[in-house]
Amino acid sequence: MNVLILHGPNLNLLGTRQPEIYGATSLDNINDLLHQFAQNHGLQLRITQSNHEGAIIDAIQEGAYWAQGIVINPGAYTHTSLAIRDAIAAISIPVIEVHLSNIYSREEFRHESLIAPVCLGQICGFGWKSYTLAIQALSDELQEST
Amino acid sequence: MNVLILHGPNLNLLGTRQPEIYGATSLDNINDLLHQFAQNHGLQLRITQSNHEGAIIDAIQEGAYWAQGIVINPGAYTHTSLAIRDAIAAISIPVIEVHLSNIYSREEFRHESLIAPVCLGQICGFGWKSYTLAIQALSDELQEST
Amino acid sequence: MNVLILHGPNLNLLGTRQPEIYGATSLDNINDLLHQFAQNHGLQLRITQSNHEGAIIDAIQEGAYWAQGIVINPGAYTHTSLAIRDAIAAISIPVIEVHLSNIYSREEFRHESLIAPVCLGQICGFGWKSYTLAIQALSDELQEST
Amino acid sequence: MNVLILHGPNLNLLGTRQPEIYGATSLDNINDLLHQFAQNHGLQLRITQSNHEGAIIDAIQEGAYWAQGIVINPGAYTHTSLAIRDAIAAISIPVIEVHLSNIYSREEFRHESLIAPVCLGQICGFGWKSYTLAIQALSDELQEST
Amino acid sequence: MNVLILHGPNLNLLGTRQPEIYGATSLDNINDLLHQFAQNHGLQLRITQSNHEGAIIDAIQEGAYWAQGIVINPGAYTHTSLAIRDAIAAISIPVIEVHLSNIYSREEFRHESLIAPVCLGQICGFGWKSYTLAIQALSDELQEST
Amino acid sequence: MNVLILHGPNLNLLGTRQPEIYGATSLDNINDLLHQFAQNHGLQLRITQSNHEGAIIDAIQEGAYWAQGIVINPGAYTHTSLAIRDAIAAISIPVIEVHLSNIYSREEFRHESLIAPVCLGQICGFGWKSYTLAIQALSDELQEST
Amino acid sequence: MNVLILHGPNLNLLGTRQPEIYGATSLDNINDLLHQFAQNHGLQLRITQSNHEGAIIDAIQEGAYWAQGIVINPGAYTHTSLAIRDAIAAISIPVIEVHLSNIYSREEFRHESLIAPVCLGQICGFGWKSYTLAIQALSDELQEST
Amino acid sequence: MNVLILHGPNLNLLGTRQPEIYGATSLDNINDLLHQFAQNHGLQLRITQSNHEGAIIDAIQEGAYWAQGIVINPGAYTHTSLAIRDAIAAISIPVIEVHLSNIYSREEFRHESLIAPVCLGQICGFGWKSYTLAIQALSDELQEST
Amino acid sequence: MNVLILHGPNLNLLGTRQPEIYGATSLDNINDLLHQFAQNHGLQLRITQSNHEGAIIDAIQEGAYWAQGIVINPGAYTHTSLAIRDAIAAISIPVIEVHLSNIYSREEFRHESLIAPVCLGQICGFGWKSYTLAIQALSDELQEST
Amino acid sequence: MNVLILHGPNLNLLGTRQPEIYGATSLDNINDLLHQFAQNHGLQLRITQSNHEGAIIDAIQEGAYWAQGIVINPGAYTHTSLAIRDAIAAISIPVIEVHLSNIYSREEFRHESLIAPVCLGQICGFGWKSYTLAIQALSDELQEST
Amino acid sequence: MNVLILHGPNLNLLGTRQPEIYGATSLDNINDLLHQFAQNHGLQLRITQSNHEGAIIDAIQEGAYWAQGIVINPGAYTHTSLAIRDAIAAISIPVIEVHLSNIYSREEFRHESLIAPVCLGQICGFGWKSYTLAIQALSDELQEST
Amino acid sequence: MNVLILHGPNLNLLGTRQPEIYGATSLDNINDLLHQFAQNHGLQLRITQSNHEGAIIDAIQEGAYWAQGIVINPGAYTHTSLAIRDAIAAISIPVIEVHLSNIYSREEFRHESLIAPVCLGQICGFGWKSYTLAIQALSDELQEST
Repeated sequence: MNVLILHGPNLNLLGTRQPEIYGATSLDNINDLLHQFAQNHGLQLRITQSNHEGAIIDAIQEGAYWAQGIVINPGAYTHTSLAIRDAIAAISIPVIEVHLSNIYSREEFRHESLIAPVCLGQICGFGWKSYTLAIQALSDELQEST
Repeated sequence: MNVLILHGPNLNLLGTRQPEIYGATSLDNINDLLHQFAQNHGLQLRITQSNHEGAIIDAIQEGAYWAQGIVINPGAYTHTSLAIRDAIAAISIPVIEVHLSNIYSREEFRHESLIAPVCLGQICGFGWKSYTLAIQALSDELQEST
Repeated sequence: MNVLILHGPNLNLLGTRQPEIYGATSLDNINDLLHQFAQNHGLQLRITQSNHEGAIIDAIQEGAYWAQGIVINPGAYTHTSLAIRDAIAAISIPVIEVHLSNIYSREEFRHESLIAPVCLGQICGFGWKSYTLAIQALSDELQEST
Repeated sequence: MNVLILHGPNLNLLGTRQPEIYGATSLDNINDLLHQFAQNHGLQLRITQSNHEGAIIDAIQEGAYWAQGIVINPGAYTHTSLAIRDAIAAISIPVIEVHLSNIYSREEFRHESLIAPVCLGQICGFGWKSYTLAIQALSDELQEST
Repeated sequence: MNVLILHGPNLNLLGTRQPEIYGATSLDNINDLLHQFAQNHGLQLRITQSNHEGAIIDAIQEGAYWAQGIVINPGAYTHTSLAIRDAIAAISIPVIEVHLSNIYSREEFRHESLIAPVCLGQICGFGWKSYTLAIQALSDELQEST
Repeated sequence: MNVLILHGPNLNLLGTRQPEIYGATSLDNINDLLHQFAQNHGLQLRITQSNHEGAIIDAIQEGAYWAQGIVINPGAYTHTSLAIRDAIAAISIPVIEVHLSNIYSREEFRHESLIAPVCLGQICGFGWKSYTLAIQALSDELQEST
Repeated sequence: MNVLILHGPNLNLLGTRQPEIYGATSLDNINDLLHQFAQNHGLQLRITQSNHEGAIIDAIQEGAYWAQGIVINPGAYTHTSLAIRDAIAAISIPVIEVHLSNIYSREEFRHESLIAPVCLGQICGFGWKSYTLAIQALSDELQEST
Repeated sequence: MNVLILHGPNLNLLGTRQPEIYGATSLDNINDLLHQFAQNHGLQLRITQSNHEGAIIDAIQEGAYWAQGIVINPGAYTHTSLAIRDAIAAISIPVIEVHLSNIYSREEFRHESLIAPVCLGQICGFGWKSYTLAIQALSDELQEST
Repeated sequence: MNVLILHGPNLNLLGTRQPEIYGATSLDNINDLLHQFAQNHGLQLRITQSNHEGAIIDAIQEGAYWAQGIVINPGAYTHTSLAIRDAIAAISIPVIEVHLSNIYSREEFRHESLIAPVCLGQICGFGWKSYTLAIQALSDELQEST
Repeated sequence: MNVLILHGPNLNLLGTRQPEIYGATSLDNINDLLHQFAQNHGLQLRITQSNHEGAIIDAIQEGAYWAQGIVINPGAYTHTSLAIRDAIAAISIPVIEVHLSNIYSREEFRHESLIAPVCLGQICGFGWKSYTLAIQALSDELQEST
Repeated sequence: MNVLILHGPNLNLLGTRQPEIYGATSLDNINDLLHQFAQNHGLQLRITQSNHEGAIIDAIQEGAYWAQGIVINPGAYTHTSLAIRDAIAAISIPVIEVHLSNIYSREEFRHESLIAPVCLGQICGFGWKSYTLAIQALSDELQEST
Repeated sequence: MNVLILHGPNLNLLGTRQPEIYGATSLDNINDLLHQFAQNHGLQLRITQSNHEGAIIDAIQEGAYWAQGIVINPGAYTHTSLAIRDAIAAISIPVIEVHLSNIYSREEFRHESLIAPVCLGQICGFGWKSYTLAIQALSDELQEST
């Protein structure tokens, strides 16, 4: 099973950016942990990060040819990008939205996700473990539908 | 580790209620699966269901004496109960909000959770596996903070 | 044909509560009139009143095993209870919402019913005769669908 | 007792218009059923249909000289016509608002009635029987107030 | 100088309609008083009343050929008719909006006029004298611009 | 192929009304151009203008017996008439909404069309050529669906 | 009969301030015209201008001892001062709100008057003649109620 | 004089719950202080706490038979319960709403009370002394109205 | 202990202004009662009334040098004055907001206080006794914090 | 005459993406049809597609040097991109907004176009023929203004 | 060149008021720094502070006779005073709005300025240097327009 | 001291784009003036312009390694980009938002800045001098904090 991990804008700053919210782990550390987790579960991972809305859309469209599922952390585009929403709605593989922090206990404008309505589900609030929980959920979902 | 599972209003109807949204598994089936999952992970579970807002508040308050964490599916009270929110904010153990369905792809009024801001995190959209993912997240969280 | 009548919060005060809005007839008087009306139409009635949202949900769920239809006056829960709405949506027998007063000529916050969208229909403004009109409508509906 | 029945805009299309919402009965059929119902209850009926807001106002004003009560289905004017509301408020006989469909389970913009606040009551969701229930309610009301 | 007086919907009921708001004078009485006032000031009056939005638009369009100014009481169309607003904006003679009652001390929905922004001015709250004050203002305006 | 052209309120004033917005061409000129265009494309046209909401509804209902498609410029009723919307939804031939001006670059209240959601499409901003583009689109649509 | 004229903030700048909106006449000119008009109608005038909300409230309270009526142009306080509204509601003599310009054809925030609901009526759009029309209306009102 | 004290949801946690907001005094301590205060003023107290909306309504209804006044701290139901509001409006003895904390300096959703409009008055922000001030106010009110 | 009492706009009219809302007691009477109450409790009072927002701000700023606490009834400025709010937030002595009437059972616009969030607490609905309750609360607060 | 065609985000998926909304024709097919249409009308076409908001802005700016007009389908950027709006407002050649589907009969958030107010006009709902109608309109417009 | 500096309400408390937001420098210190800065740039300064909205309006009107430009910190009146806005719009010299703190990173109600739309520009967030930057900008502006 | 200047979308069109709003100076001219200003003050400047939201985020992140402060004109992204806001919040050097025009005297949608709350301050309305004032402010800020 192939899974695409998409990190949205500013996630490349992890470890240095507001550590009281996002923790002290860097994105490289997280990616190592995810690769390790994937290996243990017999999964193939590809991981991409971009600050560009258009590049994320390109990645979703291309990912749909290779992967059986996508885990996306859309960062701030969660709340402003109808184009990413349309890209997810346009492909037929399941997508799960994740967030490191609990977006519902932060600023008002982070409470509304434009992306969630077209995803399989949403997981937020558990740091980098939000990603592993999502990979777990994706793996369960894909086994079930076979 | 002790974990309290709280099922909110109308979840006792699972299996008969709108199966196109909630699936055909009954609440008893789910509870069996959760107990099994708990046993495999060396956890103690107590499971309660109620249609009464006040009874859910009582259960949260009492649960805080016995459990190290709570997984709650507040059903429709998710969107109307500030009193349940206050109960969760008042105790000091972590609480995770779960939903069987992806509440963000349903009616507008199900998009706003009054409960999520005072929880550790939220997981929705994965059927009964939302609960096991939450127990997993709770277990991770508790191990980390020891 | 079995019909369940559900009176919501504060309806037990009828006759003493703001008689300029709700009339001088007590709830017991109304129940007698409804039983009499039911007898004349060859119907079986069960009547319950509760101030508890949870108890009303319990009654709806249990009523669905015995009755072929429900007439409910949700009182103030009309405007605040998504949980009662979910209970009605979850059962498969027809439900009719009634009100003694015309809720649309009263305070703004009484104009929106969270319950009506999942009911067969709504009748309001005719005092206790709102109930008999609803029983009549229910009886017609049930005969038609047989 | 004389009763005026007022059918608002597009109701003349009944039977052909969106039968999944409004049923397959034509307006002529309904009018026959209403005349029959009226005869059985010893009532005089006059029935008018118009697509013109102004013509409906004229009919209300003139109806008030002949009838003891009015049953009105204002169609889409329910949600846009303050002028019809003013006409009803200006006459002293009771008026009941009816709808064939349950307007509260349809589009958001059909949930607010500008007319209901100045009526005796509202009945919706029971097909053409909404009309007979309203005539019944009117008849009860008029007998009571004599 | 020719002046057109336009009375909107339900104003033909004046004297019988809610006299606590609109006073006991009938529309015929008011029209007599206006003709008398006009005569004293050397003006020609034409007076029309209609409950039909379209008829009022027709009257505005035709009136613009004969009159040098229009005094309009749009009744409830004040708050709902963009079409009357467009008609007034489309002609080049001055129009004054009047109301018998002070619309700002009545229901919230009577506070916003769609018509006023395209008029010369607005006068309300002085009973039938709102009309004579408007004719006075129109006469002043027309003399000034000659 | 028969096509009905419906001009809404105040369009009869074209050429004299605010020419900086609507151009200097009169409605008669436009109608001539449309007839000519129709002849060139082998179409039968009927053209109606009315300031009356009800008359427009009547025309839509009657037009549906004769025409295979309708081009409507609802004027200000675009933003206030749910009854015209219902009439269009009730018939089964395609309807296209047109506007002379670009309604989205004018006042805020002209940005929301109540009519467009039940039309095949909307064309605005091209003066009288909005009509010929719409007839073209209608003709394409009808040929395709045969 | 004694009448108090109250000019609100920035009206002392008349003649120099945005003459395309307010005209080229200075406040002194207007006051002269008003005194002359008053004399012709056998009225006593007192005229005050202030930029201070509190001073306007003081003037209303004191004016109520001397005058039989007040004509007030509250300027920008029209839209922000609940305290002036309370002062007017607290006295028992009639007050009329006037504006030089048609406030409804200006910025959105000038469309809502907090003052008008507690006045006898409102007159706007006729330049300084808004004042004389108001004095006329006041004089009529006072003669009628004697 | 008999006074009923009603503590709403989560107030039983006082002393342990967010002491930086609610103080370190437990509910038992407060109740002792209130009984002592009552004794000093020659009053009879009954004190109830419940997390159940329905139980609070029951208590209000029953309390009205025994007490001459009620002091209620509705907790989070302050902002969500129209049913408690209706219960208070339905009885004829005076009710005072109290809060330990100043609800207006907390979260936005705690600023609107659905209960206050049907109470005699509201007191908030003085810790447990909010209760004694309310009992004092009730005692004054009752002596005055005798 | 020194306490400053601040009466806001229009309170000088007490006794004559809308006695059905504010009672028949004049401001002088109330001030006498407050001085007497203060004397009994060994307090020093200074009392000021002003209709000027700026004067109230000045009084708050100066009061902070002499008094240990302030009781303020901001009248209509409660709902419009951010500047008074800032003045209270800028000083370090406790301030209590009071109202004679229950502002929550009056017009919608009186329900939101801009002042309350920066006060110690709020008391409303008890006539002039709102002031004595506030002085009592202030006295308690000051004794506690010493 | 040179015309630039700009396809926005996700339009490269046409044919595979939600064919029930967007049809089964691929973007390459559409581009072929457009080139053919252009050739028949003696026009030069350049066609670009991008998922990047910035790339679309670049294309608009560069296009303005080569083309006499632009036809743009901004996809989901229609509803979120003020920057594309600014780019269009900044150039002096006419731009027409097109959509394949009728955006007004889809989700609420697709009803508001940020782009339309700065375009010559808008055409939507006619599948790929929306583009040819727009090219036609552009061609008419350009011939007229020469 | 003459410049008027206007300090709004509560700025006289600077140094003592919430120093974590406004800094520890007193208004006298700031004024000294501004005089010094002015002298270095060859400017004449007059500086006024007032807590009275009306006094600020007076100062603006009078300032316009002496100064070539105004720098105003309207304090809390920034968000509530349309009258100050009108005063600035009424004079013809440039006005610049300044704030010590970044009003956009504070409470929601401080984000909207009623004053800024009629100013030349706005500068906020730089402590007392907001004033010197504004004087600099004013000086540049005035030199340019000569 | 190193300062990064970031010009957002469409600013490369300066001089040709709507010169009545943005002036006739081209971006190259402005950049020359800024370099000159920087040199006079002993500062190092780097200047970048991009129409791509993602490229601006990249530039902010990279800039934080080289510069001690950033001056950004986010153009239309000011009102739509939460991702740029997050990028600024994530770095620890001060950022100042500038605009050539006074955004508060333009369209409503340009009044809300998503960027300002995470900046040190905001300067707008002074043409290209907004940039030099910002560099001045940045230089002051940096000297102070050393």
